[in-house]
Amino acid sequence: MSARAGIVVTGTEVLTGRVTDRNGPWLAERLRERGVDLAHIAVVGDRPADIAAALGFFAHAGVDLVVTSGGLGPTADDLTAEVVGAFCGREMVLDAELEQRIAEILRPLAARFPDLDMEAVRESNRKQAVIPEGSTVLGPVGTAPGLVVPPAPGRDGPTVVVLPGPPRELHPLWHDAAATAAVAAAVANATEYRQQMLRLFGIPESEIAATLRAAAEEGVELDRLEITTCLRRAEVEVVTRFEPSAQGVYDRLAALVRERHGPVLFSEDGSTVDDQVASMLTERELTIGVAESCTGGLLAARMTERPGSSRYLVGGLVVYANEAKTQLAGVEPELIERHGAVSGEVAQALAAGARRRLGADIGVAVTGIAGPDGGTEDKPVGLVWLCAQGPEGALTRRVQLPGSRQDVRDRSTTVAMHLLRRLLLGEHDEEGSAGAPHSAAARGEG
Amino acid sequence: MSARAGIVVTGTEVLTGRVTDRNGPWLAERLRERGVDLAHIAVVGDRPADIAAALGFFAHAGVDLVVTSGGLGPTADDLTAEVVGAFCGREMVLDAELEQRIAEILRPLAARFPDLDMEAVRESNRKQAVIPEGSTVLGPVGTAPGLVVPPAPGRDGPTVVVLPGPPRELHPLWHDAAATAAVAAAVANATEYRQQMLRLFGIPESEIAATLRAAAEEGVELDRLEITTCLRRAEVEVVTRFEPSAQGVYDRLAALVRERHGPVLFSEDGSTVDDQVASMLTERELTIGVAESCTGGLLAARMTERPGSSRYLVGGLVVYANEAKTQLAGVEPELIERHGAVSGEVAQALAAGARRRLGADIGVAVTGIAGPDGGTEDKPVGLVWLCAQGPEGALTRRVQLPGSRQDVRDRSTTVAMHLLRRLLLGEHDEEGSAGAPHSAAARGEG
Repeated sequence: MSARAGIVVTGTEVLTGRVTDRNGPWLAERLRERGVDLAHIAVVGDRPADIAAALGFFAHAGVDLVVTSGGLGPTADDLTAEVVGAFCGREMVLDAELEQRIAEILRPLAARFPDLDMEAVRESNRKQAVIPEGSTVLGPVGTAPGLVVPPAPGRDGPTVVVLPGPPRELHPLWHDAAATAAVAAAVANATEYRQQMLRLFGIPESEIAATLRAAAEEGVELDRLEITTCLRRAEVEVVTRFEPSAQGVYDRLAALVRERHGPVLFSEDGSTVDDQVASMLTERELTIGVAESCTGGLLAARMTERPGSSRYLVGGLVVYANEAKTQLAGVEPELIERHGAVSGEVAQALAAGARRRLGADIGVAVTGIAGPDGGTEDKPVGLVWLCAQGPEGALTRRVQLPGSRQDVRDRSTTVAMHLLRRLLLGEHDEEGSAGAPHSAAARGEG
Repeated sequence: MSARAGIVVTGTEVLTGRVTDRNGPWLAERLRERGVDLAHIAVVGDRPADIAAALGFFAHAGVDLVVTSGGLGPTADDLTAEVVGAFCGREMVLDAELEQRIAEILRPLAARFPDLDMEAVRESNRKQAVIPEGSTVLGPVGTAPGLVVPPAPGRDGPTVVVLPGPPRELHPLWHDAAATAAVAAAVANATEYRQQMLRLFGIPESEIAATLRAAAEEGVELDRLEITTCLRRAEVEVVTRFEPSAQGVYDRLAALVRERHGPVLFSEDGSTVDDQVASMLTERELTIGVAESCTGGLLAARMTERPGSSRYLVGGLVVYANEAKTQLAGVEPELIERHGAVSGEVAQALAAGARRRLGADIGVAVTGIAGPDGGTEDKPVGLVWLCAQGPEGALTRRVQLPGSRQDVRDRSTTVAMHLLRRLLLGEHDEEGSAGAPHSAAARGEG
């Protein structure tokens, strides 16, 4: 039987959604890389009884390892170490050396906040040096140490890895934890898994379901693959996890998807459309400028998320008001009056304006109606026109996107990335064409 | 005893973090509004055994209600309804009327995707009409119905509300579910809770811990309050939940926070800095233009997230390259050469350029080093200069932000919003001053 683990993400702020948890999924990925099977992620508030209940659940389910995130801060609502200590049958003790190390770490804080009551800060942080007896201390990277807590001698149950909530502390401390003998022993039975991802843009998820049924009919042993299909930012992702012996089965499935969905299958190697666009721009030393209306900066923000994007992204124009379209991108007011701000003509003028004003090789433009207001019968909420223009031609597309204001804005950036990808692959509209509806993204299935 | 609930979020894509779950937190908030206590959120993969284990855990914990999200789609890995049926002791049956309704919903899809094999689509979706006998059907809004499934007659256990994963389907269907007699009966014992939030900008979380200790010393009965403090996007949030009888205790605590942290306490009514800036701009009919370098569009995107932002936001300049700073915002190349692109002088020139080029009343600018590369000893990663300029004066600030590229970019937008807020409240720098370090955001505690 394969090694199994559970993750406990603590924090009332996470439970209630004021903070989005990124630790659970990140840890899930790390566990999978090691071939450890994940039972589930429990997101609990800061109440000790609820944290204890989640640990008890995993113990009852027979997992080998539990990883917790959060609840190690200086405030009184941070109780994870104490609850884990009780769960593992271990006394809480003050680790004097750790207390000293935390004191060193706090010293620079005093310099930055001269008015701070340092005695009060030290008192708050002394709490962070009280740990279950017999734990391995990791770090700290911030002021909170990580802990590896095996069950007390003579006691059954999982080993618990206790990590602080801030990702920049949790990430390195997880790697430290994974290198300890206690964790290695707990997950000694991990199975090796492989994982592959196919990404498609421009078909509904139900077509993939049909392809999977066709695969089964052709005798592909789907029960040897764990397949997950999901819609994400207007793309369909098909993730398959399998033991190495099932590689041939996976290869047959991938070939069938390629055969049936070739034109919309844009990635088989894990690369995203953003990766592909960035590497084509970098390799060819092309520069790009953005002009965006309904996305209001999101497309430029998406492109600049990537370190090194300054090699190709010159800048962007956020042309929210019509006056901005004219002043910044040089769109003639008459053009807006004649066709409306959301039109193929204005998208083309914006892309041309971005190229010209930013002196870039490529201009990409988005103009649409993100809602919730501003839609009409002719131009409903979700209607978006896009244009990507390069030295050798342009692509202009109209899409009708489903969902909320946030969905429409986010999906518009995905459609823009795919339009750029296709332009960079050499596709251009016929001269004079304003672009056919881009059925690719015009899907509303949920 | 108060009514308790659990939430099960299904989906391997959520468990592994390819998709960020927003449903768990959203449902947590809805339950709390009704006074239902939340035990925990379980995030599980698509394996039936894991979904069943999570349901079993909640049954064992004695909750009155379980809400599930996801796993109702057309593909074979969507199994929630079946697992819930078994858990509640109910047979799965085809609901012919529901099948008919789903067929109606799918009809427009055929028009949009003329090449689609509609028979295959219908087959995929027929599965969605197979439901536990005796359930109440909700919707559907997309193609997946929601379900309210009480335990079979003579059987103990929670009532289960089964909802589809896409938020735009889940939200209305939850409201439908909450209105059913079965859900009302399950949570009949809900206690009333009140919740208050204090938001502070510019102090480390440990100072709040010190204030809570001071409150306890002054005899404030903190055990009657459930207090959570958390750092979020460079702000500290203090959320307190209490029964109505503890209102006086909360009022004493809030008064103490006000007394000790008045200048950095910017919100007591749940409003965010974004809300405050938006309403001041709207009320005074002021317009705004943005110029941003390291945030690359994020600040404009943050401002345009809000419906109605077109009333005040004219547009923005994403001036990533130095040439863009000159071409778009009119910053003199010599100024950049003399002081560097990340400097108070360039931030001021960018804010002035945004105002002028966009014809806006207020200009706000951000220029900094987001990392991971590009830092020097003098200008390390995380150094950000900001300027907000209005008709009556300006505020220029230098901050040193901790964290990753993403953290620095995101926190920069928060600092910019607070700078705008203070400008709108009438604060200005002395003439000729380039702004003091803004200790407010220069914090690195985790």
